Amino acid sequence: MKRVLVTGATGFVGRQTLTPLVERGYDVHAVSRRGRAAEPKGSAVRYHAGDLLHPDGARAIIAHVEPTHLLHLAWEVEPGRFWTADENLDWVAASLRLYRAFRAAGGRRLVTAGSCAEYDWSQTTLSEGATPLVPATLYGSAKLALSELQSAYARQWRLSAAWGRIFFVYGPHEDPRRLVSSVVFNLLRGEPAETTEGLQRRDFLSSEDLGEAFAALLDSDATGAVNLARGEVCSIRSVVETIGELTGRSDLLRIGARPGSPSDPAELAADVGRLRNDVGWRPRRSLREGLEATVAWWREQLTAAP
Amino acid sequence: MKRVLVTGATGFVGRQTLTPLVERGYDVHAVSRRGRAAEPKGSAVRYHAGDLLHPDGARAIIAHVEPTHLLHLAWEVEPGRFWTADENLDWVAASLRLYRAFRAAGGRRLVTAGSCAEYDWSQTTLSEGATPLVPATLYGSAKLALSELQSAYARQWRLSAAWGRIFFVYGPHEDPRRLVSSVVFNLLRGEPAETTEGLQRRDFLSSEDLGEAFAALLDSDATGAVNLARGEVCSIRSVVETIGELTGRSDLLRIGARPGSPSDPAELAADVGRLRNDVGWRPRRSLREGLEATVAWWREQLTAAP
Repeated sequence: MKRVLVTGATGFVGRQTLTPLVERGYDVHAVSRRGRAAEPKGSAVRYHAGDLLHPDGARAIIAHVEPTHLLHLAWEVEPGRFWTADENLDWVAASLRLYRAFRAAGGRRLVTAGSCAEYDWSQTTLSEGATPLVPATLYGSAKLALSELQSAYARQWRLSAAWGRIFFVYGPHEDPRRLVSSVVFNLLRGEPAETTEGLQRRDFLSSEDLGEAFAALLDSDATGAVNLARGEVCSIRSVVETIGELTGRSDLLRIGARPGSPSDPAELAADVGRLRNDVGWRPRRSLREGLEATVAWWREQLTAAP
Repeated sequence: MKRVLVTGATGFVGRQTLTPLVERGYDVHAVSRRGRAAEPKGSAVRYHAGDLLHPDGARAIIAHVEPTHLLHLAWEVEPGRFWTADENLDWVAASLRLYRAFRAAGGRRLVTAGSCAEYDWSQTTLSEGATPLVPATLYGSAKLALSELQSAYARQWRLSAAWGRIFFVYGPHEDPRRLVSSVVFNLLRGEPAETTEGLQRRDFLSSEDLGEAFAALLDSDATGAVNLARGEVCSIRSVVETIGELTGRSDLLRIGARPGSPSDPAELAADVGRLRNDVGWRPRRSLREGLEATVAWWREQLTAAP
């Protein structure tokens, strides 16, 4: 029996992991601060309310669920805040309590969400084995420090552990303050969308693909860090222009209206060799298909709104 | 005004930092679980009881002392346990609470005790800038992860922070289960001391010198990792033989009676370039002088005992 506890399970990424995990045969238990309020009727997923930041929160939920597998996605992610928030340190401590409770209850395999922000961004292609880990932010350092601790703890207790590094994600349910959502939202409402020149190239992945990638990683034997990305870069500008096309409102795009940041690297590409070879996963959606789904989701939200 | 809070201040290393800090003009506040019971009469040091592992412990002591400087030495150090103890994770979390409380109260400079166990021990000379950081133990990984977090937190909040990596320390007050203490203890009591062949070469430093090194590091402008060591290696066997000479009981040495560990590296030397050039510190005691002081301290303990 494979029983997985997913933390951050009602979040932008976490929610996309649940169905793929059910499809892979897991008994899926989701924990979030919001808890059961989010449980759809007839869902194969069991939702639990739990606050992992509470000193006893992890122990309580682990004792209740007794998971064999752990997919740990919960973290502070408020746009504009999370890079520097003190809560990054709270989440390091909360994650360590979670790992200990999981191990004490007989857990076997765990996967935590890492970040491309752990890498040295002066490099163009970010590769698990080769790129120096030199985070520029407290968020990146907190993730990197936790990866070191997860790895050491798993080695000592003979747990199987992997670390899924997230790159640039977009999709349904994304916070409307983030790039893709804000452009879609504005264009669908007939309002101008101001962006930078957007010449930087990034590896964009839809949250639906990312959810499947996390499920595949958990279900694999791969250990250590694995980049979760498409393995293809495109410019932020081309993403914005595609949204213009898909909404039929390219006329509202104000590309270049906002100043770019000189410290923003020109290109950040993910090496996806481990993801393809050790996990055996490839994205199912093209960038255009992912953006179509995002636009469709926003259309629904705006239609449903009062 | 320079007011320093020293954590782990009644420990084997912490106690040796207090007088050097007083001599450098610091208003010295010492915190430990044991607290004021340890305060000598007429001491220039103020002792406080405080449990940093308690969720509110760090905030309470920092609010009380309002230190400008922090020397953080407290950790789980029980011989034979500390390499793998879950408490290593507790100390990561406790240290993060301490840094936050220190920053919130207006602290300016902090130094934490790191370890040579953060380095890849397949290397012979361990150098801050060059040697890969590949700990083999949970203890080493916990220290390494915390150094990443201290560095990122200090950078973000413009604190001045350094990380003092401890190598192989001996001296008065050392736990009698550790090598130097156990050999001195046995020989002084007229009992045989069984050791390994002891051909491994290590960089040994007396705890008194290490206390001075920590005070010098805190009082300097050096940031980042700094090895705190002599910069000279000698074999464990020669240390044991010197103790035999100093006690006049070489006849009780049973060198080679215990099996060595094949995984124990033949040599671990410290690069002390940063300590000499950026901190401007060199040890005052030869290895023989340090061992003499240790033997003298144990003689006193055994004489004073009932």
